[in-house]
Amino acid sequence: MITFIIKANKARTSPDFLLKDLPGSGGRMDILCNCVESALLVSHGIRTDVEVILCLSGPPSPPRCIRMLGDRIKHLSPDERSTAILIKKALIAYRPGDEVESTPGIFVSDRSFEAVLMDNYERLVLLDENGEEYSKIPLNDPCFVIGDHLGFDEGDLELMKEIKYRMTISPKVLHASHCIVIVHNMRDKELD
Amino acid sequence: MITFIIKANKARTSPDFLLKDLPGSGGRMDILCNCVESALLVSHGIRTDVEVILCLSGPPSPPRCIRMLGDRIKHLSPDERSTAILIKKALIAYRPGDEVESTPGIFVSDRSFEAVLMDNYERLVLLDENGEEYSKIPLNDPCFVIGDHLGFDEGDLELMKEIKYRMTISPKVLHASHCIVIVHNMRDKELD
Repeated sequence: MITFIIKANKARTSPDFLLKDLPGSGGRMDILCNCVESALLVSHGIRTDVEVILCLSGPPSPPRCIRMLGDRIKHLSPDERSTAILIKKALIAYRPGDEVESTPGIFVSDRSFEAVLMDNYERLVLLDENGEEYSKIPLNDPCFVIGDHLGFDEGDLELMKEIKYRMTISPKVLHASHCIVIVHNMRDKELD
Repeated sequence: MITFIIKANKARTSPDFLLKDLPGSGGRMDILCNCVESALLVSHGIRTDVEVILCLSGPPSPPRCIRMLGDRIKHLSPDERSTAILIKKALIAYRPGDEVESTPGIFVSDRSFEAVLMDNYERLVLLDENGEEYSKIPLNDPCFVIGDHLGFDEGDLELMKEIKYRMTISPKVLHASHCIVIVHNMRDKELD
C-alpha cells in the first residue's frame, strides 16, 4: 500500500464551489483533481493499492479530510470535472464528528492535517526539493506528504520536522500531481 | 528542444464541444488538456524548450493540428477547462491551407498526423510498452510520439514502422500525460 497526503491550503471546504471555476471558486480544486487522477488511475484501470488523503484547509469551515481508497473507489474518471463532482458529493455528505462514505471508496471527515500526519508518522516520506535523492523508495508502505502550489507553512514544517525520510525526485519544482506520477513510476519499476 | 506529438483519435475538430463535457462532446479532449499541462508546465512556470503537437483526428473535419510552443505561449493555466478554452479558440481561428496563430504561441492548421511524423522522422522516439528500457533518452532533441486511450491504428503503425527508437518507461500502461511527466523527469535529471 502507498498513501499520498496532499495539503490543499486554500481548497474550499464547502460544496458551493463552481465546477466551471475550480481554480478560483474551488481554491485550486483543480490541483486536487489532478492529484487524484495521478494517484489512482492507470490506462483503463485503477491502482487498487493506493490511498489518497486530501487535506482541505480553505474557507469556510476547515479542516475537511477526503480519503479515497483505490480498492473500493467507483465512478472515478480521468477528467477534472468528474473528480470535482465526487469531491463536491463528499463535502455535501459531511457530518460533524464522523467519517462518512459519500460514494463508494470516498470518505469525508473533519480530521485535521496534523491528525493525518500523526496517524501515519512512521510511514511518512516528505517530498522536499532539498531532500535526499533516493535510488529506491525508502519504505515498503510509504506515505508521501506533498504540498500544493503554496507548499507548507511554518506550522506544517514544525509538525513535520521529525520526519525521517525527505526525498527529492527532480531538479525542478514540479506540480504535486507530477510528483505523484514520478513516485508511482519508481515504485512500479521496483515492484516489477 | 523536446517535442511531444499526441495522436488524439476521437478529439473533436470543431470548436462546438462543451467545456462541461470534455470527455464526451470533446472526444476525450480532457486527455489533450492533461498532456498540455504535463508537457508545458512546472510549478509556477513554463517549460520554454518544449513543443507540443496535438493531432486531432475526430469528427467533423479532421485533421486539425494544434501546435504549442513553450517559449511563446501565454495564458496557459494548469486546469483542464482553461486549456480547453485555448484549444477551442484555436479551432475557431482555423483557416484552410494556413497555419494560424490563434493566441500567443498556439498555432492551428490542417496538417495531418502523417505529415507531422514525416517532418520529424529523424527525431522520433515512439513510446511503446514493448520498446526498449533506455537508461537515457536516446537523442538530444527528441520528438516523442504518444497515443491516446485508443493508441494507434494499423495505418499509424505502418507509418511508424521505421522509427528507430522505441522506448518503454513503465511496466504499466499509463495515461499519455503521465508518460510525458516521466520523460520530462528523465530529461531534467540528465540536463541537471
